[in-house]
Amino acid sequence: MSVLIVGSIALDTVKTPVEEHADQLGGSASYAALGASFFSPVKLVGVVGDDFPASEFEFWKTRQIDAEGVQRVKGRTFRWSGEYAWDMNTRETKSISLNVFEHFRPELPASYRSSDFVLLANIAPALQAHVLDRIEKPRFVVADTMDLWIETARADLDALLPRVDLLILNDSEARELTKETSLIRAGRRIRDAGPKYVAIKKGEHGALLFGEDEFFSCGAYPLEDIHDPTGAGDTFAGGMAGYLAAAGGELNFAAFRRAMIYGSVLASFNVEAFSLERLRTLTKREIEERYQVFRAMSQFEVVA
Amino acid sequence: MSVLIVGSIALDTVKTPVEEHADQLGGSASYAALGASFFSPVKLVGVVGDDFPASEFEFWKTRQIDAEGVQRVKGRTFRWSGEYAWDMNTRETKSISLNVFEHFRPELPASYRSSDFVLLANIAPALQAHVLDRIEKPRFVVADTMDLWIETARADLDALLPRVDLLILNDSEARELTKETSLIRAGRRIRDAGPKYVAIKKGEHGALLFGEDEFFSCGAYPLEDIHDPTGAGDTFAGGMAGYLAAAGGELNFAAFRRAMIYGSVLASFNVEAFSLERLRTLTKREIEERYQVFRAMSQFEVVA
Repeated sequence: MSVLIVGSIALDTVKTPVEEHADQLGGSASYAALGASFFSPVKLVGVVGDDFPASEFEFWKTRQIDAEGVQRVKGRTFRWSGEYAWDMNTRETKSISLNVFEHFRPELPASYRSSDFVLLANIAPALQAHVLDRIEKPRFVVADTMDLWIETARADLDALLPRVDLLILNDSEARELTKETSLIRAGRRIRDAGPKYVAIKKGEHGALLFGEDEFFSCGAYPLEDIHDPTGAGDTFAGGMAGYLAAAGGELNFAAFRRAMIYGSVLASFNVEAFSLERLRTLTKREIEERYQVFRAMSQFEVVA
Repeated sequence: MSVLIVGSIALDTVKTPVEEHADQLGGSASYAALGASFFSPVKLVGVVGDDFPASEFEFWKTRQIDAEGVQRVKGRTFRWSGEYAWDMNTRETKSISLNVFEHFRPELPASYRSSDFVLLANIAPALQAHVLDRIEKPRFVVADTMDLWIETARADLDALLPRVDLLILNDSEARELTKETSLIRAGRRIRDAGPKYVAIKKGEHGALLFGEDEFFSCGAYPLEDIHDPTGAGDTFAGGMAGYLAAAGGELNFAAFRRAMIYGSVLASFNVEAFSLERLRTLTKREIEERYQVFRAMSQFEVVA
């Protein structure tokens, strides 16, 4: 089953204590789409300027990513620039130029409107709702969000939550949204606001998953070197949504556990190189191998 | 197999945003001994003043904790007072009165000197080494430490590390000890300094375990309400050491995994009430039940 993904497509300039790279492909939808494409065909919705590399459209074609829903308009592509602190855990946004994104009104090609699976990657909740309104009968809706929208578009976000099946956000955002210090309470409170499932990302500490009377906790895949954390959360969301879409009808809690692990595995690959470079060469076999290693590292009891 | 435990025995005054309790039993050895006693007999080494409640010695008798090595001397018992911030994650030490602890020179009863299993609970590394010197042929040595000793007694700590089989410390301490931001690198670097195994505690985010070419990651047992985090790390260390001592000869990595989970389970019970109150009423059956629930919450794949 394919998954419709809407979000930002950007050209990023990223600086870490070690390296700096300018005008690399970025944006929540770019990471999420490539992450999801390992499991399911993707229908991508977004906007780029006339400075956007045509090669990217060619690449998407090779990866079952349908870009008919990506508008190509006059002007410059959305640009983001950020710098990571020495510990790679905190980052500062240096500049944002919305450019063609400023007046973006997502339009869905006719073939997109019957989509069952939807991932509303990280963009303003009003845009997320706008896309959702145009889908005839969405069966499963995954949404990602961030602190910016909790702080500046809270009413839009609150209105969206009852329409979401799985909300993905990070630990500080879960605390900010609920004013609960305990992540366990926060996860349950968010479920009360609408989403049937909530995934709380904790970066190097892994992730938590809340369902109705169900709970799953997993660590992060252990990495010694992180080159660029940009897009890890978007890749996680994409991997999770792609796996769930592929699982199709059988969405029990066991499928959600596996989806969260696959999301974590994809995110762990993503941060090993700048931009989407690692995901471009990644294979299904590498994903499966890391899944098995990760599983072995997290088992309470080793079955001989 | 019994485990010899040395550490502090204190009377604590603890304030949280909700409650305050004065002169409650505390200290690293008190928590560690009670934690370990669920799995193995304990030989306790420490010092108390003449104000220390005799009822505690009676309680220890009921819990296979041998207190022959606890010196009772003239003067006041060691006292610590601390206050937790609103999020229960950070705390401030309000006062410390060493009292009888100031001139504490641990003496081991003759029956203690042949101990195989040793837990050096959190006290100054020079005192930990002093006790270790008096044990004839320690077979397995677990040590806990803290930021204070990394900052003020680094040479003593460095000298101790090659004599330790399993070092337990928390995430910020592991970073401070190694100057590594990645916990994965930090864990491996600490192993290079001596300990064959390293357990890094991450509070609400669980714990990591490093062996030779082996790694295990587990979350924390999910709790909605934490009443008093005091002693969680000491209880974790005690549970881990007690479980390993009970496992006796068979110390493969699978035993270490289970030991870390039992340590986490005991710590999760401990924080549900002030001081050691929850551990006093805890049963083996409750421990086993929580172990199974915790296991189910952490499994990647559910076996029907």
